[in-house]
Amino acid sequence: YFSSSAVIMAKSKFEYVRSFETDDTCLKNCYIVVRLDGRNFHRFAEQHQFKKPNDDRALGLMSRSARSVMEELEDIIISYGQSDEFSFVFKRSSNWFKRRASKLMTHVASQFSSSYVFYWKEFFGEQPLLYPPSFDGRVVLYPTNRNLRDYLSWRQADCHINNLYNTVFWTLVQKGGLTTTQAEDRLKGTLASDKNEILFSEFNINYNNEPVLHRKGTALIWEKREETVSKRMKLPNEEEKEVPVTRSRRRVEAFHCDIIGEQFWEEHPDVLEDDAC
Amino acid sequence: YFSSSAVIMAKSKFEYVRSFETDDTCLKNCYIVVRLDGRNFHRFAEQHQFKKPNDDRALGLMSRSARSVMEELEDIIISYGQSDEFSFVFKRSSNWFKRRASKLMTHVASQFSSSYVFYWKEFFGEQPLLYPPSFDGRVVLYPTNRNLRDYLSWRQADCHINNLYNTVFWTLVQKGGLTTTQAEDRLKGTLASDKNEILFSEFNINYNNEPVLHRKGTALIWEKREETVSKRMKLPNEEEKEVPVTRSRRRVEAFHCDIIGEQFWEEHPDVLEDDAC
Amino acid sequence: YFSSSAVIMAKSKFEYVRSFETDDTCLKNCYIVVRLDGRNFHRFAEQHQFKKPNDDRALGLMSRSARSVMEELEDIIISYGQSDEFSFVFKRSSNWFKRRASKLMTHVASQFSSSYVFYWKEFFGEQPLLYPPSFDGRVVLYPTNRNLRDYLSWRQADCHINNLYNTVFWTLVQKGGLTTTQAEDRLKGTLASDKNEILFSEFNINYNNEPVLHRKGTALIWEKREETVSKRMKLPNEEEKEVPVTRSRRRVEAFHCDIIGEQFWEEHPDVLEDDAC
Amino acid sequence: YFSSSAVIMAKSKFEYVRSFETDDTCLKNCYIVVRLDGRNFHRFAEQHQFKKPNDDRALGLMSRSARSVMEELEDIIISYGQSDEFSFVFKRSSNWFKRRASKLMTHVASQFSSSYVFYWKEFFGEQPLLYPPSFDGRVVLYPTNRNLRDYLSWRQADCHINNLYNTVFWTLVQKGGLTTTQAEDRLKGTLASDKNEILFSEFNINYNNEPVLHRKGTALIWEKREETVSKRMKLPNEEEKEVPVTRSRRRVEAFHCDIIGEQFWEEHPDVLEDDAC
Repeated sequence: YFSSSAVIMAKSKFEYVRSFETDDTCLKNCYIVVRLDGRNFHRFAEQHQFKKPNDDRALGLMSRSARSVMEELEDIIISYGQSDEFSFVFKRSSNWFKRRASKLMTHVASQFSSSYVFYWKEFFGEQPLLYPPSFDGRVVLYPTNRNLRDYLSWRQADCHINNLYNTVFWTLVQKGGLTTTQAEDRLKGTLASDKNEILFSEFNINYNNEPVLHRKGTALIWEKREETVSKRMKLPNEEEKEVPVTRSRRRVEAFHCDIIGEQFWEEHPDVLEDDAC
Repeated sequence: YFSSSAVIMAKSKFEYVRSFETDDTCLKNCYIVVRLDGRNFHRFAEQHQFKKPNDDRALGLMSRSARSVMEELEDIIISYGQSDEFSFVFKRSSNWFKRRASKLMTHVASQFSSSYVFYWKEFFGEQPLLYPPSFDGRVVLYPTNRNLRDYLSWRQADCHINNLYNTVFWTLVQKGGLTTTQAEDRLKGTLASDKNEILFSEFNINYNNEPVLHRKGTALIWEKREETVSKRMKLPNEEEKEVPVTRSRRRVEAFHCDIIGEQFWEEHPDVLEDDAC
Repeated sequence: YFSSSAVIMAKSKFEYVRSFETDDTCLKNCYIVVRLDGRNFHRFAEQHQFKKPNDDRALGLMSRSARSVMEELEDIIISYGQSDEFSFVFKRSSNWFKRRASKLMTHVASQFSSSYVFYWKEFFGEQPLLYPPSFDGRVVLYPTNRNLRDYLSWRQADCHINNLYNTVFWTLVQKGGLTTTQAEDRLKGTLASDKNEILFSEFNINYNNEPVLHRKGTALIWEKREETVSKRMKLPNEEEKEVPVTRSRRRVEAFHCDIIGEQFWEEHPDVLEDDAC
Repeated sequence: YFSSSAVIMAKSKFEYVRSFETDDTCLKNCYIVVRLDGRNFHRFAEQHQFKKPNDDRALGLMSRSARSVMEELEDIIISYGQSDEFSFVFKRSSNWFKRRASKLMTHVASQFSSSYVFYWKEFFGEQPLLYPPSFDGRVVLYPTNRNLRDYLSWRQADCHINNLYNTVFWTLVQKGGLTTTQAEDRLKGTLASDKNEILFSEFNINYNNEPVLHRKGTALIWEKREETVSKRMKLPNEEEKEVPVTRSRRRVEAFHCDIIGEQFWEEHPDVLEDDAC
């Protein structure tokens, strides 16, 4: 049994344990990327009857959760997602959470995960969520614009490769009547061109006409939009009148397009800061 | 525009970005503690009308979410929570996620957060969750049993101090008719004994009779329980019969008791591993 | 007592301790700076009667040791020293020691220290070295050319400030007849312009005419030099002849000049790699 | 061209580069081990004609340098060396250099290296040191006494294995007349018992009678010694007299003995702190 005062005195005796915390500040002037990956999402997708090869409800929920992360955390300039993963990029000059890696990644993982459950119904309607899903995360630093863009290109190239494979695979199964094992065997060792050819010659599918959401994934960035709202204002002659007022608001916008080439970056020059800083 | 093959070739060109990941393996043979803290929970509590000074629904939901973390992640031997924080302790010999700090803490943060939303209704019934809440986390290592127990004692001492303060504060407001500013002024500079005295002499409240859940917080550990279930079995004479079968199952059990002193640890000697390893 | 075989078997039992080593790889594509600082060099300078405010023998020995470091370790592109400190910059693409911070900094510290003792006699002649001196070091990463140049500028600005102070201080003592305490008091609160004025009006010294070695410190870089050596060669007619052969060799060259402005970097464009990589 | 005042103003502009330094504080309550390894010592040994398989001058110089490290740096409780390596153990409660890993290991590397050159002549007499040697280092943390002792046992087991091999190898070459290639072939696949057997049956050498310095390496610890010095003191009757005064002094003592078993640690119980702290 400890008395109140004993516990309070004890507290200062225990407080030394704080000094065991280590500093994990991210190197200054580097982009900070937090990537989340779904845990056991293969099983999660099966138990929730995700459509194969892509479930637009699930992809929509991923993007909705990512948007929630961008709106809650400062300084995320772009995020990119595909399948069950999403990457968030903090601007190189960010001082959010004093750049402490642990705080940044846990906050992203937490906000994303609670949003995923919170917005489930918006995308899956009455289909119940059977158990709380989880994501793990990591932090990676990139010193230059080239490195950061190569990171994002790497993830989009990954999206392309997986989606092409999955599209052919599930077409062979769903339309071609193959078992999953047969489809796997059929695709073993095939090149991209072979896969395109199978789709085209056997199923009359031009892969390039598949939805861009599936082929390119989702990039979210902040965009300034002019918004016109009408506001009731008092005129000099004491009359009141509805007046249209235009103001500029930052909003998260989604893009499903190539982010490997130059065009996207030329059209959105404000996303990245200059290297020469 | 990039062709399929061009993107695939490009992928290997981009893959160098993986080498920017740094290794954050936790030092071997140390306890790994992940602590989560609610973000802006002051505002969250107000907007969801949490009862002052303690809302048993909210505390129950915290514990339910912590239980979900313990059941999903291997190797957590004890967790301790109070108010809007929860600490999870991985055993010192754990090799979960290869002891990678980032994976451990993001997974804990993610599982806890999605569970918090998922189980909301179990505790708050029809009262709606207004927005997805979030938690941030950190990792701290403790080399010895002494250090780990001092960490847990530190958190429980914190619980005591805050709860004593909050109990008096809200009693002064709710029963004493003071404004919050007046209650704050009244408590400025008071010692633990003064606060106990106010409660007792002015409101006839013995602080030690307040609920242990509020005074001690919640410790969750694994306990072996003998479970007897009846199973239908075929007897040698081909007859079938209900037979009682006893088996031992590990279950997460909650304790609201002092964990600063020796008793709790003596009664649960399997929680901690020996230092001499 | 342990037999040979017992010890050998034991070794594999002990080898787990290797897994306690942590990875301290430096982030890719950043400049790696190792800075050394003399330990207790105030005392060391006094016991070895260093000339005040600058001892050219000591500065020469520092540079000689730094040159030895550059010649032994790969990938150092520039080093800069002043007083009892020296900074070494590894190129951003270096993979020396797999970029392990601990290896890089200990090797630099070790090579510098053994060289300092080894070359002592070259600079101090018969004056004996009384005890082995030591240096401590640290590693800092810089992601961009701007950051790296600002680092070097910071060190040279430090050189300027200290040397101006020391020059006036020791002039007041050595030529002005002040005690060190009086000189300290005299300089308290003075600006750079005041110090320049004291030197000029009282001692007819124009600070800008002081040796550049003292005012600017020492920058060491690699330079290609054409070297002509004569080589004995056999002519087609079997005759032998001395033939002049020109070849290009990399050599460490010392500069005592401003490295804050653009000129030095424009004249040596190969020192830094481009940011856009 | 920059004026004095411009440079001084500039300095504050550059000072932001300090914030790129990262904190590398060692986890509290762990033993900190710094291990140094000679760089290219195979070549160094050849060029300085080290005696094979062990050169007592070189081993003596290693120990002398290690002693110099222990005398200069606080809080090293034991060091252990063999061949061209030496490990230094800081006590777990040490706060030397605020436990900053980079400072600890560079200081050890620097002091050891300058001492190696400084004391060369004491061990090699007139044989000149041809060039400054270097060592690289690393830091490893050990949370418990068991882990630390296993680390030291690992290094001593390594000493045993290497020395047994080298002893047989060089005996085969120097006394058996084999070439180095023949000796290598002869030893391929042999066990410890085979090697002992070769030494004994072919060369009448009992390995256990080889010098302990070679078989066990060198452990250095601090020991209290009573020292009696005579001091001239004034007696009450104003007479002066030589009086023997005994005082206790800490000195670094060398041991060449087994440190794997219990005996050494039982005889020196003050070296390690208790785990239960």
